[in-house]
Amino acid sequence: MESRFSRRIPPGDTHERDVCDTCGFIDYVNPQILVGSVVCWDNRYLLCRRDIEPRRGFWTLPAGYMEVGETAIEGAKREAWEEARADVALEGLLAVYNLTHIAQVQLLYRGVLRSPDVEAADETQEVGLFAYADIPWEDLAFPTVRWALEAHHALGDHPLGAPATNPVGGDSRLPSA
Amino acid sequence: MESRFSRRIPPGDTHERDVCDTCGFIDYVNPQILVGSVVCWDNRYLLCRRDIEPRRGFWTLPAGYMEVGETAIEGAKREAWEEARADVALEGLLAVYNLTHIAQVQLLYRGVLRSPDVEAADETQEVGLFAYADIPWEDLAFPTVRWALEAHHALGDHPLGAPATNPVGGDSRLPSA
Repeated sequence: MESRFSRRIPPGDTHERDVCDTCGFIDYVNPQILVGSVVCWDNRYLLCRRDIEPRRGFWTLPAGYMEVGETAIEGAKREAWEEARADVALEGLLAVYNLTHIAQVQLLYRGVLRSPDVEAADETQEVGLFAYADIPWEDLAFPTVRWALEAHHALGDHPLGAPATNPVGGDSRLPSA
Repeated sequence: MESRFSRRIPPGDTHERDVCDTCGFIDYVNPQILVGSVVCWDNRYLLCRRDIEPRRGFWTLPAGYMEVGETAIEGAKREAWEEARADVALEGLLAVYNLTHIAQVQLLYRGVLRSPDVEAADETQEVGLFAYADIPWEDLAFPTVRWALEAHHALGDHPLGAPATNPVGGDSRLPSA
């Protein structure tokens, strides 16, 4: 048997939801939280080349969906380990980006690598440590990766302040092919 | 027909999920984002007395679940309007709280009321504007309401900096009855 959903406002609700015609399950779709980090070793930035779609082969920050039972910062540490075997110490929020077109909120933390020993792991083809000038800017996977790297660089050695947000006029969507 | 879920790891996944035995639907449960605000008029804080469980009758900040299609700050503005008919101007993030026991991340914004004309609306019995000393501290609905009010007060007129996070040793759970 398969899932078939109809779009309806459940009793007592204010928004339309997908309700399964077969079993009555209500699929509350809320925005999802992506947690990740911008981490350096000796002023070089850790990036991961994606081994999954979308944007397979492009470079990204270690990041992924936050899971139940962890804090955002714990999730960001877990993702750095899962994708790059990176042991990171995270300090606080560098940026909060809203991607309304995919209902995603990104919480990106600033931190450091505790060791330069990193390696490609889950969902990653290759890992690299790049000086800012050597970042593969043309081969970054998503606009928010660029934004976060730029925000990190602009902050330099200053203490964390108000987190960066979407740049004015910035388009968080993928460039069309 | 009813929904009946089994706990299994779907193919290609790394975590156990609830999978519907009837229709095969996979219920990806990720943490949810609650968006809200701490807003003042003439140094008085807007609070709402809840008309829904949990904690019906206790005072809270205007806040609720972020919806698809909006940014976090838009969601916080929407909730202030829905619950208190409050027209608010929000400046930036005051606090980010993690409530791991209910898989919730709270994004709470600092702002001001554009007008003192507020009134109880959805899910709200009563609204009030309280000087800090007059806040009904013993009748606040949730620990994070207290934390956010204290964080706002501690910041005073200073510009927003790094958002407040869970206090060290702070327990975000409801006091047991």
